[in-house]
Amino acid sequence: MVSDCSTKKIAHVVREYEGVKRKHAIGEMVKALWIDAPQVIASFGEDAAVIEHNGEALLLAADGIWSRLMEADPYWAGYCSVLVNIHDIAAMGGRPIAMVDVFSMPKNTHIHEQVVKGMHDASAQFGVPIVGGHLHPDAPYSVIDVSILGSARLDSIIYSNTAQEGDHILAAIDLSGRVHPSCALNWDSVTMKTAAYVRAQIALLEEIGKDHLVTAGKDISNPGLIGTLGMLLEVSGRGAEIDLGKVPKPDLAANAMTFEQWVKMYPGMGFILTARKQNVDELVRRFAAVGMTAHDIGTVDATRRLRIRYDGDEAQVFDFIENGITCLPPGEASCRQQ
Amino acid sequence: MVSDCSTKKIAHVVREYEGVKRKHAIGEMVKALWIDAPQVIASFGEDAAVIEHNGEALLLAADGIWSRLMEADPYWAGYCSVLVNIHDIAAMGGRPIAMVDVFSMPKNTHIHEQVVKGMHDASAQFGVPIVGGHLHPDAPYSVIDVSILGSARLDSIIYSNTAQEGDHILAAIDLSGRVHPSCALNWDSVTMKTAAYVRAQIALLEEIGKDHLVTAGKDISNPGLIGTLGMLLEVSGRGAEIDLGKVPKPDLAANAMTFEQWVKMYPGMGFILTARKQNVDELVRRFAAVGMTAHDIGTVDATRRLRIRYDGDEAQVFDFIENGITCLPPGEASCRQQ
Repeated sequence: MVSDCSTKKIAHVVREYEGVKRKHAIGEMVKALWIDAPQVIASFGEDAAVIEHNGEALLLAADGIWSRLMEADPYWAGYCSVLVNIHDIAAMGGRPIAMVDVFSMPKNTHIHEQVVKGMHDASAQFGVPIVGGHLHPDAPYSVIDVSILGSARLDSIIYSNTAQEGDHILAAIDLSGRVHPSCALNWDSVTMKTAAYVRAQIALLEEIGKDHLVTAGKDISNPGLIGTLGMLLEVSGRGAEIDLGKVPKPDLAANAMTFEQWVKMYPGMGFILTARKQNVDELVRRFAAVGMTAHDIGTVDATRRLRIRYDGDEAQVFDFIENGITCLPPGEASCRQQ
Repeated sequence: MVSDCSTKKIAHVVREYEGVKRKHAIGEMVKALWIDAPQVIASFGEDAAVIEHNGEALLLAADGIWSRLMEADPYWAGYCSVLVNIHDIAAMGGRPIAMVDVFSMPKNTHIHEQVVKGMHDASAQFGVPIVGGHLHPDAPYSVIDVSILGSARLDSIIYSNTAQEGDHILAAIDLSGRVHPSCALNWDSVTMKTAAYVRAQIALLEEIGKDHLVTAGKDISNPGLIGTLGMLLEVSGRGAEIDLGKVPKPDLAANAMTFEQWVKMYPGMGFILTARKQNVDELVRRFAAVGMTAHDIGTVDATRRLRIRYDGDEAQVFDFIENGITCLPPGEASCRQQ
């Protein structure tokens, strides 16, 4: 099944993947921006910030699109600028409310129509309006940054930093899709789906939050499945061992894809969740009901290291005591030594 | 007083100023992004979008910093990325809650520390936390985009598109400041002030909204005082005549500045407001109490043209029937003909 890889090779690939390495600079910036604000329940290190407001939680997140994606496929870049933000709210167990964007583009480019069309189509499909923003029509570059507002009940939020020893780790991914023709590391499971289909997937995360079925969660973003789990474990101050043989995956051969490629993928709909053992089966059932495949891939432990194994072979991907990914607490101490 | 200018020259300068001209592309983009969303009370054309949520208004805005400012002065660029967003919420009569940012920077740049320091200092001074965001540490450019969340009572919002015929036009500016040493078109009235001083200015706009003292308002942004008034009149479907002799201004000679330069300035704290005649004196008093000079500079009319006069001389700056600034409704029809 994982024929093209040794665990050591996979560990190396994940660790050295730019999507993971580029996260290092976050920690220092967070410390430099800090001000005391008691209404802020959670901020950096979570997929969205959590702000207490009139007895509920307002969620606020921002995400931008790598310039290389803008160049490769302006429509998909616009679509993704919306998608990644909706993922950020869903990963917190929240409901997306509205988005704003800042779009910078050079004077004589024609890509903006495709970018805007991609943004519109995702906004309409997920039913989350883009309500304003700012346009730089004479920038020396093309870049699209989107921010999103969402809300949640204060007692129903899914945090990243609350994984506990003994929790089971679930990877939940919509496997019915395609390698995006413009981006070998994007698994498009969304553009071909109906509005009802994708909205049910987003709504499920809100239900899971309300029903307290998970202990922590994060959407699978640019660092891929293993990198995302690494970030969740780092901020939780925990470690884990996962079995690569259990990672949900589409037919790799039919999609002309390697397993290495798959574990680096940004999936159109994918989440890493941790849960108590007694909730695993219920979660797997609920994800299946919205077209997503959830597998129990391993267990959280106290090691503060992430190890992967497959078929007797084993390797360490991250050691958060030695080297953080985001250098956010509680991993910050290790980063200062770097 | 306005010795260095004829009204025709000023009209030309404002119309051709890049800060104004670069607004043209907005209208088409807004139409392309539109989806139906009944909870959205106002969106493009306002300084912040207004979303009805649990019986109150949530305000959401985004703003970016021109690349030329990033290059000229990274600290001031970071400071302004926060300041312009706080202005957006204040201009709506709202209270700022929190911000998120997307910061893109090249690999080997050292400007980011200064940018982040500027952001932090403005955030701390105004008491509005930066709660999250996204970092692109390997972009081919430096750009900082910030989004802000605010709130207001639904009945206390100051809109841009509600100026009425016969309203008086107030320009309210904090004149105690300096031409920013890095940016000839930025009037810095903020960095040298205490937290209490600038927070009182922001809070005043919320009070003005609650007390229904104005009919419309907008913060003076990159298009300058006359350009900002133009945008307000365009979306209100109105015109106006203003007297340049009445525009509040610092000692131009002492600041080695021309009047042309002053009317293109982005002030650290400045708003254009329209009000019924009976509220003008009260507004002037309240602004004076927080260190701002508010003058009645003219009157809103039904012409859909903005004219300026000084000392018997007169010129037309904008004709919204012929040429829109933002091409947002109701000015969109004219833009389609361009």
